[in-house]
Amino acid sequence: MAPLQHKFQLDESEMPTRWYNIVPDLPAPPPPPLHPVTHQPVGPDDLAPLFPMDLILQEVSTERYIDIPEAVQDIYRMWRPSPLYRAHRLEKALGTPARIYYKYEGVSPAGSHKPNTAVPQAYYNQLAGIRKLTTETGAGQWGTALAFACSLFDMECEIWQVGGSYDAKPGRRTVIETFGGTVHRSPSRLTSAGRAFPEDHTGSLGIAISEAVEVAAQHEDTKYALGSVLNHVLLHQTIIGEEALLQLAKAGESDVDVVIGCTGGGSNFGGLAFPFIREKLAGRMNPVIRAVEPASCPSLTRGEYRYDYGDTAGFTPLMKMHTLGHDFVPDPIHAGGLRYHGMAPLISHVYELGLMEAIAVEQTECFAAAIRFARTEGIVPAPEPTHALAATMREALACRESGEEKVTVTALCGHGLLDLAAYEAYLKGAMVDSGLSDTDLESALAAVPSVAG
Amino acid sequence: MAPLQHKFQLDESEMPTRWYNIVPDLPAPPPPPLHPVTHQPVGPDDLAPLFPMDLILQEVSTERYIDIPEAVQDIYRMWRPSPLYRAHRLEKALGTPARIYYKYEGVSPAGSHKPNTAVPQAYYNQLAGIRKLTTETGAGQWGTALAFACSLFDMECEIWQVGGSYDAKPGRRTVIETFGGTVHRSPSRLTSAGRAFPEDHTGSLGIAISEAVEVAAQHEDTKYALGSVLNHVLLHQTIIGEEALLQLAKAGESDVDVVIGCTGGGSNFGGLAFPFIREKLAGRMNPVIRAVEPASCPSLTRGEYRYDYGDTAGFTPLMKMHTLGHDFVPDPIHAGGLRYHGMAPLISHVYELGLMEAIAVEQTECFAAAIRFARTEGIVPAPEPTHALAATMREALACRESGEEKVTVTALCGHGLLDLAAYEAYLKGAMVDSGLSDTDLESALAAVPSVAG
Repeated sequence: MAPLQHKFQLDESEMPTRWYNIVPDLPAPPPPPLHPVTHQPVGPDDLAPLFPMDLILQEVSTERYIDIPEAVQDIYRMWRPSPLYRAHRLEKALGTPARIYYKYEGVSPAGSHKPNTAVPQAYYNQLAGIRKLTTETGAGQWGTALAFACSLFDMECEIWQVGGSYDAKPGRRTVIETFGGTVHRSPSRLTSAGRAFPEDHTGSLGIAISEAVEVAAQHEDTKYALGSVLNHVLLHQTIIGEEALLQLAKAGESDVDVVIGCTGGGSNFGGLAFPFIREKLAGRMNPVIRAVEPASCPSLTRGEYRYDYGDTAGFTPLMKMHTLGHDFVPDPIHAGGLRYHGMAPLISHVYELGLMEAIAVEQTECFAAAIRFARTEGIVPAPEPTHALAATMREALACRESGEEKVTVTALCGHGLLDLAAYEAYLKGAMVDSGLSDTDLESALAAVPSVAG
Repeated sequence: MAPLQHKFQLDESEMPTRWYNIVPDLPAPPPPPLHPVTHQPVGPDDLAPLFPMDLILQEVSTERYIDIPEAVQDIYRMWRPSPLYRAHRLEKALGTPARIYYKYEGVSPAGSHKPNTAVPQAYYNQLAGIRKLTTETGAGQWGTALAFACSLFDMECEIWQVGGSYDAKPGRRTVIETFGGTVHRSPSRLTSAGRAFPEDHTGSLGIAISEAVEVAAQHEDTKYALGSVLNHVLLHQTIIGEEALLQLAKAGESDVDVVIGCTGGGSNFGGLAFPFIREKLAGRMNPVIRAVEPASCPSLTRGEYRYDYGDTAGFTPLMKMHTLGHDFVPDPIHAGGLRYHGMAPLISHVYELGLMEAIAVEQTECFAAAIRFARTEGIVPAPEPTHALAATMREALACRESGEEKVTVTALCGHGLLDLAAYEAYLKGAMVDSGLSDTDLESALAAVPSVAG
């Protein structure tokens, strides 16, 4: 019997050299962001205090492909192309005829997909003469990635970390400092947005974004970097899906049945899924595209599609997106990277166009899936992609019933070695589900004022 | 300008299918282990209570190559061949003409080189009908690897972890439990070897080995597994050096000037270095082979070469090795994996034959090197290989002075994401060196009774 092949690698020379922009391929253009005060569509100049012009032009681009600068490619090649794995041992353990593939981004310096956008963001800022970047981080994956990226370009990096994560995960802070970044607990006393909350507040991504934006807007040589949600961030992440398509071809899979990704702000999901949606729109394959979100923060499946702010203080432009409300504070579930009140406007738009579907999963199901995955595939997943793994296992078990040999592809967007408290809680039997019943959620949503649109 | 190549990968089909045994290539055979009571050379039957016969035969083998079983190869391919990196960014930061290569074992399920031997050890035990393996672990890398390997073969895994590490690193325990292993703090109350020490004792590898050996010896269906020191363990690790040689050829390096590895028990070092020593003995290249050990546990550079026990209680055979004495308790330095009183007998023998050299380095120099490495190469190294990185940087800086374009190869045997307390201490300026002055060390060594030989 020929040996099983576990990894489908690409050489560095085979790495895609362009990012894919889904906008020109969509049947309708996405609604524009609106100015937070005037409620008029924002132009490039409105965004200039926060972002360098190269990134703003990517944000509004209608070009199908954008070249990855050579300096960024050179850094990508430190860990890219990332491996695509066939989960032979998991398939066997599940007794499924499905073929399960996962694209693993945990090989990056930050242990997740986040450096795919942190590196170009730092690069374009440095080109524009910027000396320092500010940002927020929840679980810490994004802060780690940006600190790493800034270290490569000799820039400072100042990070507001959601208070609850800051307290629970000192290891994450140490990694960020090892890469040369500075970390503040949010809400901090350094900003007016932070001082609006008590110092011991557990914080939220919305508050931390307000703090980082406030500092960036006050200094000429400082800009802000966002780790998800925006078009240019999703654009940078499309290298995941582009590589996966090349690797699936090497694995002899010309067709894919299901593409599954977890969604918080949407960058991992968009990065994997958009190139597959292009293939679908072009009629080259016809996969189901499925987003998986936590039951306790179900923006796509339960949020309203309307204009809302990206942050708690209302500093950001209004974006049309599926939102639970910009002052919605999600339950402290373990997948900190998915605790965001809104969904990327571009993914919200794609969802409204009927090009994808979404489900919500409780965290105990996710961690049961994660333990099974670790014991068969040997990787301890980050809490976020455990949602995608749980949905993948649902699909694989359905195939066991139906006998279908479906090809599923998912993004294992990071490892969980800096998020072990979640595993400890699960193994002790101390993890609880969101308990966010339908009634609770209705009342939580009813309390959220509609802003515009 | 052609893009720089950072990673030299091998396809799964190019993975070596044999382990290399250095014994038949050495100019003199290594001294045999002696029975702990009779002081006569031990035969295979003496080791049978602890190890399955397949491993015992590997321990005493004089065959140059041993085939890797297909079932083991299949598991290796989940992460192997591991990448060889060229450290372009580090070279640039150091301003050195040296070409620095590192073989990265952190991509494995345990995040280190340890699964290379854990998997075959579990495999051969399962073949022999064994239901459970016991072992010790210090920093936790080895316990993680064995728990993972046992999970693949449906075996139980019971681990005694050095008390100080158990207390300081709850994350490591969680990973072991995620892989299905059971962890006890050592000294435990479960064994007579453990009960000989107060319950709150910080423990040592020697004590933890005694506990694991005691339990294995008492049960028919239970054997013991050791993560370093023994011949068969070093044998399994030679896949590191064999792959590195193939990868260096792909990188166009037919000659290597310096091979550098950190040494605790010796398995990482032997795994990298032995295939290079074969090349040296055959006259195909002439590298300097350099072991790097911690200044606070300098078995090769300061220990005596004589027969000593592998554990504190004296249950193991006597092995001729460089030793600080089996009751030497090293300072609690951060590189827990290097805190072993002795050196692998095979490495001790190779050292006595003049085929390699050794140096000792203080830990603050190591962590300064690690921070520099993380900020250029994007990987946070485990505390153990920071010793090899420090020595590599010394060599690279010497090349900057001399202008020599030396080719250096080192083993980055694991990542440090579960050992961040060391980085936190370093970044805070709270890390201290061993302070084990010459006088202190002399008196520590003088207190150690000579056992035999």
